[in-house]
Amino acid sequence: MEKDEKIINMSKELWAEYMPHLSVDSVVFGFHENQLKVLLVRMAGTGLWLLPGGYVRKNEDVADAAERVLQERTGAERIYLQQFGVFGNLNRSEDFFQAYDDDLWHKQRFISIGFYALVDHSTVNPKVDIYSDRCEWQSIVSLPEMGMDHRTIYDTALTVLRQQLSYKPIGMNLLPERFTMTELQTLYETILGKTLNRGNFYRRIMRFGILVKHEDLRKGGAHKAPNLYSFDPVKYHESLQGIDW
Amino acid sequence: MEKDEKIINMSKELWAEYMPHLSVDSVVFGFHENQLKVLLVRMAGTGLWLLPGGYVRKNEDVADAAERVLQERTGAERIYLQQFGVFGNLNRSEDFFQAYDDDLWHKQRFISIGFYALVDHSTVNPKVDIYSDRCEWQSIVSLPEMGMDHRTIYDTALTVLRQQLSYKPIGMNLLPERFTMTELQTLYETILGKTLNRGNFYRRIMRFGILVKHEDLRKGGAHKAPNLYSFDPVKYHESLQGIDW
Repeated sequence: MEKDEKIINMSKELWAEYMPHLSVDSVVFGFHENQLKVLLVRMAGTGLWLLPGGYVRKNEDVADAAERVLQERTGAERIYLQQFGVFGNLNRSEDFFQAYDDDLWHKQRFISIGFYALVDHSTVNPKVDIYSDRCEWQSIVSLPEMGMDHRTIYDTALTVLRQQLSYKPIGMNLLPERFTMTELQTLYETILGKTLNRGNFYRRIMRFGILVKHEDLRKGGAHKAPNLYSFDPVKYHESLQGIDW
Repeated sequence: MEKDEKIINMSKELWAEYMPHLSVDSVVFGFHENQLKVLLVRMAGTGLWLLPGGYVRKNEDVADAAERVLQERTGAERIYLQQFGVFGNLNRSEDFFQAYDDDLWHKQRFISIGFYALVDHSTVNPKVDIYSDRCEWQSIVSLPEMGMDHRTIYDTALTVLRQQLSYKPIGMNLLPERFTMTELQTLYETILGKTLNRGNFYRRIMRFGILVKHEDLRKGGAHKAPNLYSFDPVKYHESLQGIDW
């Protein structure tokens, strides 16, 4: 990577204002019209894609830093981020800035705290910051090459999201208020990256006890209209705690 | 807290050898003879109980640091630790050392990375280090008061362990190779801290498909002997990945 004056000029302020050696990176999954995407930024001048990330102020809680950074990098506000892992191996980012002097802020060892969120991506309006020349949703089926260990951070977040499907419901704020069983199954299939057996899916999802079945409102067609469901908000939030043995 | 010369003398070496502002703390749950305990150390001279914790060397991966620290503090070797959360709020530990000068290593802001493990506690031989005068298993039903935010770290680890019961099996290396359904249920009840309905537990645990039922080996008594089970190691490890939708 070639040296960038902007980064050199930034280093002194970063040393003064932020916790050294500590970064936050966010994996924001966006679901909309049956597609799963992830929010990436392209580092200006390098053509390299990264997760939106940044640093923790000396007078700031770590969780607040993650929300602020995401907002600054992407314009995405009020996204509830969940911490899911720490990426603390040696040389995960140091080499990236090897063209620079050793006292450059960015060239130090950084331990990154990973956060993730799953949102309806039509509610987010990405915008670039001074580090990046692009900020956009990328389909998870054709991701560009990513810098540092950000592909590993992304892969870990996806694994955690998939595990979460085993014991927590998902779908509120991602599906319309009333939806068909097929629409809910498609959400799960998109996240899991595979097709599911219809009968097994139905039995498993009903076991959570979070769905309300509605009177058929889509009458009048030539074919039998599919049943419509909505989430029972109380039971939905109860089951976010995991299975009650 | 009164000043301790040992801590002041240690500060300079810590600044030279370790990553500033970063600590690791471990919640080691021990299960043995139907009791759940947690490994605590008592800080010498203070009477205050803490989780075993320490710092990350400049040339060391974070996960390796957690294992080394646990071994140094407690003598516990080869414990597989899982990272479960980051404790990054302001003033979680700074006040603890307020009697000391501001440049003391320990008085800085620390962001702690939490690890947890569940082990058969008869396999661990706790021993003290230079910071502590006691290191021992404490029953989770009568924990002593803990310093800094270590009670919060412990509570979070227990929540994560309980959530894990919703989608991952537990019990291998904690129960004898062959066990009764009652013994397995008691393990779950001990971790969850409540009694469970026998029929519901049986149905839920069988759904994991991880148990092998054995021919009755406890014949000869006046009463019908309970069935014995063991874990199918292949299916057990498969199901550690979570539900296969």
